[in-house]
Amino acid sequence: MVATIDPTSLAHRIEHTLLRPGATRSEVAQLCREAIEHRFAAVCVSGCRVIEAAALLEEGDVKVVTVVGFPFGDMDPDAKRYETEVAVDNGADEIDVVLNIGRLKDGEDSRVLRELRDVVEAADERPVKVILETCLLTRDEKIRACKLVLESGAQYVKTSTGFGASNGTVEDVQLLREIVGDAFGVKAAGGIRDAATAMAMIRAGADRLGTSAGVGIVRTAGV
Amino acid sequence: MVATIDPTSLAHRIEHTLLRPGATRSEVAQLCREAIEHRFAAVCVSGCRVIEAAALLEEGDVKVVTVVGFPFGDMDPDAKRYETEVAVDNGADEIDVVLNIGRLKDGEDSRVLRELRDVVEAADERPVKVILETCLLTRDEKIRACKLVLESGAQYVKTSTGFGASNGTVEDVQLLREIVGDAFGVKAAGGIRDAATAMAMIRAGADRLGTSAGVGIVRTAGV
Repeated sequence: MVATIDPTSLAHRIEHTLLRPGATRSEVAQLCREAIEHRFAAVCVSGCRVIEAAALLEEGDVKVVTVVGFPFGDMDPDAKRYETEVAVDNGADEIDVVLNIGRLKDGEDSRVLRELRDVVEAADERPVKVILETCLLTRDEKIRACKLVLESGAQYVKTSTGFGASNGTVEDVQLLREIVGDAFGVKAAGGIRDAATAMAMIRAGADRLGTSAGVGIVRTAGV
Repeated sequence: MVATIDPTSLAHRIEHTLLRPGATRSEVAQLCREAIEHRFAAVCVSGCRVIEAAALLEEGDVKVVTVVGFPFGDMDPDAKRYETEVAVDNGADEIDVVLNIGRLKDGEDSRVLRELRDVVEAADERPVKVILETCLLTRDEKIRACKLVLESGAQYVKTSTGFGASNGTVEDVQLLREIVGDAFGVKAAGGIRDAATAMAMIRAGADRLGTSAGVGIVRTAGV
């Protein structure tokens, strides 16, 4: 149980995120400046912005995270694999891929797993986080998905895209943490707009938080 | 001006669409059966379902449409090109690609155009429709986008993904038709849930309608 956390430690768990469609070059530049200023763990940007973000963050410790198969997860597996390769070539440090939700519902677990392994291989040693989009899954599907992620070679399971019908809950984070155990990563994302929610997600077991409200969160945390 | 249209002609303009994340194999199969029964122009499915849909529709006239860079349009250009190639290899007859909205807003028109030309080339003679996501664009941006689509070698301009903050309006369809002229394709998509809306879109200039409500629309049209 984490009772409180200082703003610096909190910042180190935040992936400063800008995935809204139509985001501009100047918004990406501002995101990167804020991430450096507040010592966030990473920025998270769309595939077409990886080169820009990587150039702006070349000097420091802030990682570049990007997304694959985002936000629906229903691309062709080979297209997801290639999108991962391109992201790595462009300078991405970490890959957040959306699991194929329909195939999970179809019970095609071996296909879901194979696709994830291909992405992990294409990521070439870089951490892969697998987005479940918990709002679309039953409890059983969440558990099955976590087990596939554990087998895939990925390093994190992640609750949500932030663009679903609803976002990952504290209960989702608790469930994911319970299934994957203490040695695996859990990223909470979607709807984390204030310090209280951020702290609740961390107490529930999240190592990383994906949020577009990181600046406000660290300013008010511990105040 | 089209005053009325018979149900068969209406059906020939409909792309029977299932792009909801988490759609299952059996839902895709039902979509294809309905498209054959009602003589829709096409089904529109996500990338991972193209092989299944193409197999189910091999015999008839119903085309397989799929999406690229969907729904945000902010993938890396090379990943979009490859996603198109994979779709063609898997049996897609037509490609609906989302334009890079952020780059349009950045004023990087030549980059937007180059990306579209790459997708058109990868589509290898198959019709390409370019989705503008009009709800995110100013009037000036819609006009600039249409002109780029005209130059790209694509065959249609399309209003919306159906997953944006709002959907393309009758006024959007009128504006797009006005800019691209009579010899180019206009596809209306998003929020077309009844025959009255379908007819309004056709009267405004739409050649094709993307909708998940096609069965209900043709059943009530002309009644």
